[in-house]
Amino acid sequence: MTLGRDILRQADELAAITEAPGRITRSYLTPQHREAGERIRAWMREAGMDADFDALGNVVGRYAGATDDAPLLLTGSHMDSVVDAGRYDGLFGVLSPIACVRELHARGRRLPFAFEVVAFGDEEGVRFGVSMIGSRALAGRFDPAMLDKRDASGVTMRDALVAFGGDPAAIPSLRRGNVVAYVESHIEQGPVLLDAGRPVGVVTSIAGSTRVRVRIDGLAGHAGTVPMGSRQDALAAASEMVLAIERHCSERAGTLVGTVGKLAVVGGGAINVIPGAVEFTVDLRSGDDAKRLAAVADVEAQCRAIAGRRRVKLAWDAFFELSAAPCDRALQSQWARSIAAQGIEPMYLPSGAGHDAMEFAALAPIAMLFVRCGNGGISHHPSETMTAEDADLATRVFLHFLEHFEPPPVRR
Amino acid sequence: MTLGRDILRQADELAAITEAPGRITRSYLTPQHREAGERIRAWMREAGMDADFDALGNVVGRYAGATDDAPLLLTGSHMDSVVDAGRYDGLFGVLSPIACVRELHARGRRLPFAFEVVAFGDEEGVRFGVSMIGSRALAGRFDPAMLDKRDASGVTMRDALVAFGGDPAAIPSLRRGNVVAYVESHIEQGPVLLDAGRPVGVVTSIAGSTRVRVRIDGLAGHAGTVPMGSRQDALAAASEMVLAIERHCSERAGTLVGTVGKLAVVGGGAINVIPGAVEFTVDLRSGDDAKRLAAVADVEAQCRAIAGRRRVKLAWDAFFELSAAPCDRALQSQWARSIAAQGIEPMYLPSGAGHDAMEFAALAPIAMLFVRCGNGGISHHPSETMTAEDADLATRVFLHFLEHFEPPPVRR
Repeated sequence: MTLGRDILRQADELAAITEAPGRITRSYLTPQHREAGERIRAWMREAGMDADFDALGNVVGRYAGATDDAPLLLTGSHMDSVVDAGRYDGLFGVLSPIACVRELHARGRRLPFAFEVVAFGDEEGVRFGVSMIGSRALAGRFDPAMLDKRDASGVTMRDALVAFGGDPAAIPSLRRGNVVAYVESHIEQGPVLLDAGRPVGVVTSIAGSTRVRVRIDGLAGHAGTVPMGSRQDALAAASEMVLAIERHCSERAGTLVGTVGKLAVVGGGAINVIPGAVEFTVDLRSGDDAKRLAAVADVEAQCRAIAGRRRVKLAWDAFFELSAAPCDRALQSQWARSIAAQGIEPMYLPSGAGHDAMEFAALAPIAMLFVRCGNGGISHHPSETMTAEDADLATRVFLHFLEHFEPPPVRR
Repeated sequence: MTLGRDILRQADELAAITEAPGRITRSYLTPQHREAGERIRAWMREAGMDADFDALGNVVGRYAGATDDAPLLLTGSHMDSVVDAGRYDGLFGVLSPIACVRELHARGRRLPFAFEVVAFGDEEGVRFGVSMIGSRALAGRFDPAMLDKRDASGVTMRDALVAFGGDPAAIPSLRRGNVVAYVESHIEQGPVLLDAGRPVGVVTSIAGSTRVRVRIDGLAGHAGTVPMGSRQDALAAASEMVLAIERHCSERAGTLVGTVGKLAVVGGGAINVIPGAVEFTVDLRSGDDAKRLAAVADVEAQCRAIAGRRRVKLAWDAFFELSAAPCDRALQSQWARSIAAQGIEPMYLPSGAGHDAMEFAALAPIAMLFVRCGNGGISHHPSETMTAEDADLATRVFLHFLEHFEPPPVRR
């Protein structure tokens, strides 16, 4: 239990480093980023690692391998947060492997590979509207045009980075070579493990997603004078579409989720006017790209049929698409073996949320361990919780995983 | 056709008197109200009436009866408009009876009752947020507290009225006595006559209405991580309620209309967040109060059942209620007789919209004539249309009605 309690205490310490007293808000290249990073760097060094900020403000701790040319096993997660966040999202995946290294170092144990723990400066994308900034750079996917992005005050990422002490010119050199795998431990941010009564689980895939903007144009009219049968009510049409999307995904629950997160009558509407136009968004996710693409096609067809029957116009703009990142099967088996070694039957589940691991999918085999999220699975919210028992167990699983790690077969 | 063409030309002239060039917008106690009122006053005088502005800025034209103690038949409608309005809503009900008086006067015909045509300064309520200001005063229902209402610039109705040349102290004296009936001619503002192929129709009742504010509280959550079956999605619940309200009213089409005019995710929502709370409005109308109250009870029960099944909270605030104003049966028969006299089979229909006539329902028998609205029945919009033929016919109906008017039996 010591490992778990220490991690939770560290998470409490970091939670106090916030831009908004009383709430946890810590964004990229702020004084709070600096302060949290320094704290983490100190813990990395105490654990026996070489550690420092890199050119992008990530904090990197390195536990050298038994030999200089040993391949690299990467892990990490993010130290930034959403606005009014929970305290374990991201940081648990930094603190847990640091605790593992502390154990190994205390025993004088070197691994047959170099092990790096990275606290990414930005994953959430709150400040500059682009996410996964840190992991993109280490994966060699950083687009220099992102440096021109501005925050709400008009400051560019480039200027903020220089002021932080970073070095825009050195970003390309952050790309890692000889990476044998990228693994990540993360709080689930959902209720699946909680509902199943399992403390940890093996992630099968990080969901891909499609995002759509929909606009319905009907015909505004007087709420008192237009008979029901003559209406072209954009909101009634949109409501039927919301339910069609929900039904389609519910019938495929477990492999698909779909959400209409924003919906509004254009112009706000009026109590005595039949809505003439409505805009809404659709977010469809699946760990299986084929299922997601089939769902997109099906719900679009359903929405078009509803629009036709109700004599309203439909504009469908699928403006964003991200492929799923499947987790390496050999690494999944190694997580499962390490879970079983703690006396727990392994459970497998997909990740509906995006994670830094996605960025490494093209560079190396990836794998993730999920840790149970309390309070109904709520995350991105102050009431996100994790027990010391679960934190302890997940860290012991990670330690076992490291001590028994076998490089997965090279993919072709 | 001369009568109809003249009225349409007058409506065009008045449409050019607007606060917003290119759109028709004419609100209470503005220079445009003054200018339009002066034009109407001139037409009333040319038609043979005594005419002037009253203490509230209404323009009143009086065609004296055959004797000094003759009872009063009132008619009128409003000269103000909504923002970006059509040109016949309200004004047709002023211009058409003026044309009738011109005919009677040209023939030297006095009626056995006094006849007043009133152009009400405000019915729409755009400027001060209270509607039917003019008709309330003549019906003896003007609440002096309304004088303290302020427009968007902070000017009180009292100050605006004094600046206009009105007299707040004289408002109580505007109440009419010895009123034998209030009748009103109005463009339908809906598609019922148009769909039925009828130029005019007899109004059976002005609908009563119930307005409700509804709030749904579910549970916000991550769009990727909360399985479909675990969600308490406030928007999906609200969507089901929108459709339940639509279905209930559609099954009773002809006697009931129901509209959800405003609906929004509280806080605007986010594309990747399950909506936690939604607010929407309900507007239910019927010419039959019992049917409306039964509908309110039924849709509330349906919404509560949906909320229960979906594990979301429902707050139901029925904040506004207005009883229906049934039209006098004897006067309906007189309208029907005057329509039949033009060789047209009378058609009866309810009014879903509110009108000045409602305010007089407690003072005297009321009745309304509706005139066909072109363009699919659109109103409160620049594309509102009326043909010269229909304007002509409706005016001939009104003239016949006046020449054959019989005071309805006194109600007890």
